[in-house]
Amino acid sequence: MIARKARAVPLTQVEIRDQFWEPRIQTNRRITLPHLFEQLEQAGNIPNLRLAAEGRHESYQGPVYMDSDLYKAMEAAAYVLAIHPDDPIRKPLDEVIAILERAQTPEGYLNSYFQVVAPDKRWSNLRDWHELYCAGHLFEAAVAHYESTGSDRLLKIATRYADYIDSVFGDAPGKRMGYCGHPEIELALIRLYRATGERRYLELARFFLVNRGRKFFAQEHHIPLDQYDGSIWQDNVPLAEHKEIVGHAVRAAYLFAGTTDLVAETGDETLLRMLLRVWENTVNRRTYITGGIGNEAKHEGFTRDYELPNRTAYQETCASIALIFWAHRMGLLLGEARFFDALERALYNAALAGISLSGNRFFYVNPLESDGTHHRRAWYSCACCPPNIARLLASLGGYLYAQSEADFWINLYVESRVQAALSGHKVRLEVLTEYPWRGVVHVAVRPEVPTRFGLHLRLPSWCENPMLKVNGVPTALTHEQGYAVIRREWREGDRVELHLPMEPRLMEAHPQVEADRWQVAIQRGPLIYCLEGCDQPVPLHLLAVRAEGALEARWEPGLLNGVMVVEGDALALPDESDWGEMLYRPLKPRKPARFRAIPYYAWDNREPCPMRVWMPAV
Amino acid sequence: MIARKARAVPLTQVEIRDQFWEPRIQTNRRITLPHLFEQLEQAGNIPNLRLAAEGRHESYQGPVYMDSDLYKAMEAAAYVLAIHPDDPIRKPLDEVIAILERAQTPEGYLNSYFQVVAPDKRWSNLRDWHELYCAGHLFEAAVAHYESTGSDRLLKIATRYADYIDSVFGDAPGKRMGYCGHPEIELALIRLYRATGERRYLELARFFLVNRGRKFFAQEHHIPLDQYDGSIWQDNVPLAEHKEIVGHAVRAAYLFAGTTDLVAETGDETLLRMLLRVWENTVNRRTYITGGIGNEAKHEGFTRDYELPNRTAYQETCASIALIFWAHRMGLLLGEARFFDALERALYNAALAGISLSGNRFFYVNPLESDGTHHRRAWYSCACCPPNIARLLASLGGYLYAQSEADFWINLYVESRVQAALSGHKVRLEVLTEYPWRGVVHVAVRPEVPTRFGLHLRLPSWCENPMLKVNGVPTALTHEQGYAVIRREWREGDRVELHLPMEPRLMEAHPQVEADRWQVAIQRGPLIYCLEGCDQPVPLHLLAVRAEGALEARWEPGLLNGVMVVEGDALALPDESDWGEMLYRPLKPRKPARFRAIPYYAWDNREPCPMRVWMPAV
Repeated sequence: MIARKARAVPLTQVEIRDQFWEPRIQTNRRITLPHLFEQLEQAGNIPNLRLAAEGRHESYQGPVYMDSDLYKAMEAAAYVLAIHPDDPIRKPLDEVIAILERAQTPEGYLNSYFQVVAPDKRWSNLRDWHELYCAGHLFEAAVAHYESTGSDRLLKIATRYADYIDSVFGDAPGKRMGYCGHPEIELALIRLYRATGERRYLELARFFLVNRGRKFFAQEHHIPLDQYDGSIWQDNVPLAEHKEIVGHAVRAAYLFAGTTDLVAETGDETLLRMLLRVWENTVNRRTYITGGIGNEAKHEGFTRDYELPNRTAYQETCASIALIFWAHRMGLLLGEARFFDALERALYNAALAGISLSGNRFFYVNPLESDGTHHRRAWYSCACCPPNIARLLASLGGYLYAQSEADFWINLYVESRVQAALSGHKVRLEVLTEYPWRGVVHVAVRPEVPTRFGLHLRLPSWCENPMLKVNGVPTALTHEQGYAVIRREWREGDRVELHLPMEPRLMEAHPQVEADRWQVAIQRGPLIYCLEGCDQPVPLHLLAVRAEGALEARWEPGLLNGVMVVEGDALALPDESDWGEMLYRPLKPRKPARFRAIPYYAWDNREPCPMRVWMPAV
Repeated sequence: MIARKARAVPLTQVEIRDQFWEPRIQTNRRITLPHLFEQLEQAGNIPNLRLAAEGRHESYQGPVYMDSDLYKAMEAAAYVLAIHPDDPIRKPLDEVIAILERAQTPEGYLNSYFQVVAPDKRWSNLRDWHELYCAGHLFEAAVAHYESTGSDRLLKIATRYADYIDSVFGDAPGKRMGYCGHPEIELALIRLYRATGERRYLELARFFLVNRGRKFFAQEHHIPLDQYDGSIWQDNVPLAEHKEIVGHAVRAAYLFAGTTDLVAETGDETLLRMLLRVWENTVNRRTYITGGIGNEAKHEGFTRDYELPNRTAYQETCASIALIFWAHRMGLLLGEARFFDALERALYNAALAGISLSGNRFFYVNPLESDGTHHRRAWYSCACCPPNIARLLASLGGYLYAQSEADFWINLYVESRVQAALSGHKVRLEVLTEYPWRGVVHVAVRPEVPTRFGLHLRLPSWCENPMLKVNGVPTALTHEQGYAVIRREWREGDRVELHLPMEPRLMEAHPQVEADRWQVAIQRGPLIYCLEGCDQPVPLHLLAVRAEGALEARWEPGLLNGVMVVEGDALALPDESDWGEMLYRPLKPRKPARFRAIPYYAWDNREPCPMRVWMPAV
C-alpha cells in the first residue's frame, strides 16, 4: 500500500505576482477566454447545446466531441473566477450553464451530438465517439466551478450525469461493460469523487480503468482478436501490464493520470509499478527535449523508442498538457522532484509554445523544426488545444506548491504568495524570483506562530550546482527525492535563498535519437531555445553551431515581450551564390558567424521564417 | 543542323588489359553470364518463349516484360562472343535463337506474354505492358549479335518484327498512333537502322519520339486530359518542350538517349536544345554524387530539384546504365568531355555497385546509406538490372574511344590496345595506366605510317592540375571541350604521358541538397567512397569526419580484390554505455578517432553492416 505524499495547494491559496507568468495569465484572462467563447459560439459548440436544449434534431455543427471543447473553456473560466470573481466571463459562463440545465435529459444524459443528431446511437461506439470523454470534461469543469465559485449549479448537472452513467456501466447485474476510446472520464470521476465524497464515482473510475485492455473495442467493432491491436487506445494489454507508452499520446497521458489518481486513492502497488515503468519509458525514450510527447501525426502518438523526428514532430499541445497532468499527479503521489522536472520542461517549452504571445493564436502541432510555413491559428476544426492551454494557464497557481501535514514543497519557482496550514498553524510564504530568466529564489517564511515543518525546495535537474542560504548563512544541501529539505521551527522573518546557476548550455541527445545526432540544442535554466531564421546573419539552413564555442545570455527587453536571448559562435556555409550550377565540389572552408537563439515558447510570434531547435554542431 | 562530332570505336577494335576492369569483365563472362541464363531458365523467361514456340496458352511465368530480360542477357552474350568466339555461352544463345525463330509468328510478331497469355490484347495497353519495349531489347540484342558474330539469324528475326511493327504504327493511312510507356524501342530502332541501312526504322523511331507528349496514354486509358499528368512516362509535354528530367528514371534516360540518336541522324537543333536543357537539369540538380539518378522509390524516378535523400535513394542500377547510354551518345554527338565525366562517375560508382565482386549478386536499388539490411540478391521478380549490368560490362570496350576522320578521343582511361583508321591510315594506340587507382596514363601511338590527326585526352573534371608530356617533354595543355588536344603528325614510337593528380578529397553538396547539409563525401579520382561499419573503430552512427582533417590513401591488396582505401581523422560520440537512462544531457566532448573508407562500388561485399557515403563533417 502506497500513501500519497502530498496534496496540491489549491490555486485559491496562491497569489501569482510573477514577471514571467502574470502577463501570460492576464492575457489568458483578457484575450484568450473571450476569444474562446466567441469561437465556441461561431464554430457551433454552444449553438449545438442550444439545439439540444430546444429538442431539435438538425443544424448540428462540427465533430462528435464539440461539447468537450466548451467544457474545457468553462473550466478555464471557472479558474479565472476563483481569482477574479467579478470577471465578465461570469456572464457567458452562466448562460452556458443555463443552457446545459435545459439540455440535460430527465434521466441525466447530456451530449449535444447524440441528443441532436443520433439519439438512437447512445453508447453504441465508445471507441470512436468520445461520449464518456465529453462527460469527463463536463465533470472537470463542474468541480472547478464549484471549488472556484461555491455555486453547485454546474456540479449538480455533473453529478446527475455521473449518476446516470453509473447506472449504465459497471459490474453489477443489469449494468454493461465498456470504457471510452479517449480516456479522460477516469481522472474526472476521481476529481468528482474528491469534490463530492461520493464513492460510487471512484468505483466507476476504477471500473473504467481496470477493465481497459480487455479488448472491449474488438468486441464492439466485431474485429477478430487475432487482427486486433488496440494500442492506439491503450487497449492492447491489461492496464497493469503496460511496459511502454503507446498509441495516441493525449489518451495515454490522460489514462495514466487517471491511473495515478486511482493509485493515490487505493494505494495499488501493482498499478504503481506499471506507472513507474511507463513513466521511465516516456521520459527516457519518448519525450522531446521541449518536454512534449507524441512523435508522429498518423495516430497523434508514439512509434518506438528514440524515434523523435524534429520537422515532423507532432508534439500536440494537448499531449504536453496531458503529460503535465500526469507528472503533477505522480509528483504529489511520490514526493519526488523528477516528476516536476518533467512538468517544468513541458510547461515552459512544449505547452507554452501552444499559444501566441497575443493570446489568440494556437498551435495544435508543435514541431521542433519548421521551414517557415507552420503557424498558429485562431481556431481548429478539432479545437481541443486552445481551451486546454487556457485552462492550464488559468490554473497555474495550483501547480506551484504542495503540502502534507508538516511538509511544504515548492515545486515551481514563480514569484507569488501562498498560505497553507502546517502542523496546525497558518503559514504564509513569499517567493521572490526572476525565474526562468535568473536562478535566484528568495523565500520568506511567515508563520503566524513559530511552526515546525519541512520546507522542500525542488533542485531542478538542469542545475548542477545549486546553493542554499538560510537566513543569510550558506547551508549544506540536504537532498531528499530531488529536493533540498530544511526541517526546523520556522519563525516570522526567516528567509531562505536558493541559487540555481543558470548558464546557457549546449545539449546533446542520446545517440539512438537519429534525428539529433551530431546536433545540439540550447538550454538555459528550464528553457529550451530555438533559432529563428530572422535572427541570424545568414539563412538558417546555412548555419551550424560551434560545438566548442562559448555561449552568452543577454536580456532583450524589447524582444518578444522581453526575453533572455542566447548568442554564440557559429559557422556558415557559403551561400548559393557561391555555387553557380555545380551540384558537388571539394569542401570549401566554412565562415565564422554568430547565432542568436530565443526561447522555444516564443517562436512564430514575428514574421514567418524557418526555425530549428536542434542545430548541426561542428 | 548539328553534325555528330565522333563515332564510338567499336569494342571489336579494343583489347582491354586493365587491372581494374579486366577481372570484372572476366567474372562477367565466366560467372555472371552463365548465372543469368540459369536464372532466365528457372524464372521462366526462356520457358515462356518455348511455350510461345509450341503455340501453348498456359504456364506463363512472371511479369509481362519477361522477354526483355532475356534479350539483354543475349546482348551481353553477343558482346562476349565478339571477343571470345569460342565462349561456351554460344550454345545456350543459339538455342534461344532457335526458340525465337520458332516462336515468331508468320507476320513477324514476337512476344511470349501476348502469344501465350493474351493473344487478343496485342497493342491494347502500350502504356503499361512493355510490348514495344521488349521488341526494342530484341533489336539491340540482334544488332549486337550480328556485329559480334557476323550471323544474321537473330537480326532476321528482329527486322521481320520491326517490319511488322512498322506496318502497324505510323502516320500513313491504315497505320495507328501510339508509343511505348517504357521508351527503349526508339534507340533500338536507330541502332537497327544503322546496322541495316533500312531508313524505315529511323522513321519509325522518329514517329515514336516526336509523337510522345501528345498524351496518347490519356486517350488509351480514357483519362480526361485535365486529370492526366503523364510525367511518369514523359508524356506530359511534347518532346521538344521538356525542361527538367521527370518521371521514371530509366524511361527518361532511355528516351533521351534515343532522342540523342535521332539528333545525331537528323541534326535537329530544337531537340538538341531540349536535350542540353534537360541534361543540365539532370546533372546539376538531380544526380547523386555516385552518378546515379532517380531519387525515389514510388515511381522509380524523380521528384524535384535537389531532393536527393540518401537512405531512401532509389538510384536503380538500370537508371545509372541508362544515364551512361545517354551520356555516351551526347558525348559522341557534341565531342564534349563533360558528358564522359558524368558517364565515368556513373560507371565507376552507381552502376558498378549494382553487381557483387563475385558476379552473381545484384542490386536493383542503390542507396547511399544503409542500416546494414540492404543486400544484393541473386535475382529479382523484376530482373531488369542483372542482365543490364552484364551487357554494360561486356561492352565496356566500346565506351573507351571515339574517332572521326582525323581525330581520336580517349574518353575513359583503361589499360588497353586499340586500332582505328585515321586520315586513311591504320593507327594503333596502347594505353598503359593503373587508373582509377593512380592517375598516370601512358599512351603509345603506333601509326603504320606517319599520320596527322588530333589526339584528344579527356581532362576529368575531378582533376584540378593535369599535366601533359609529349615524348617526355612537358607540354602546355591545349584545351578543347574539356580535352587536352595534341594535333601533329604522329610517328611510330611517339609517346604521350598524362598525369592526373589524384588526391583524396572531401566533397560537399550544394546547400539546397538538404540531405547532405553539413556532411561530406570522399572522392579520389573518379571514385566515390563510402564508410562501412565493419571498418570503423566505433559504430558508424557514432562517427563523424573532421572537416579539416588530412586524408590518406593506402593500397590494400588483400581487401575487396584490392582497393585503395582512404583514411582520415574523425570524431566519435561517446557510445550508449556512457549514457545510462538519460535522453538529453549537456554536450560532452567528442573523442578523436580514425575512419576508413572504401570505394562505393565495393560495398556490401563482406559481412552485413551499416554504410554511408555522406558523413557528418565536424
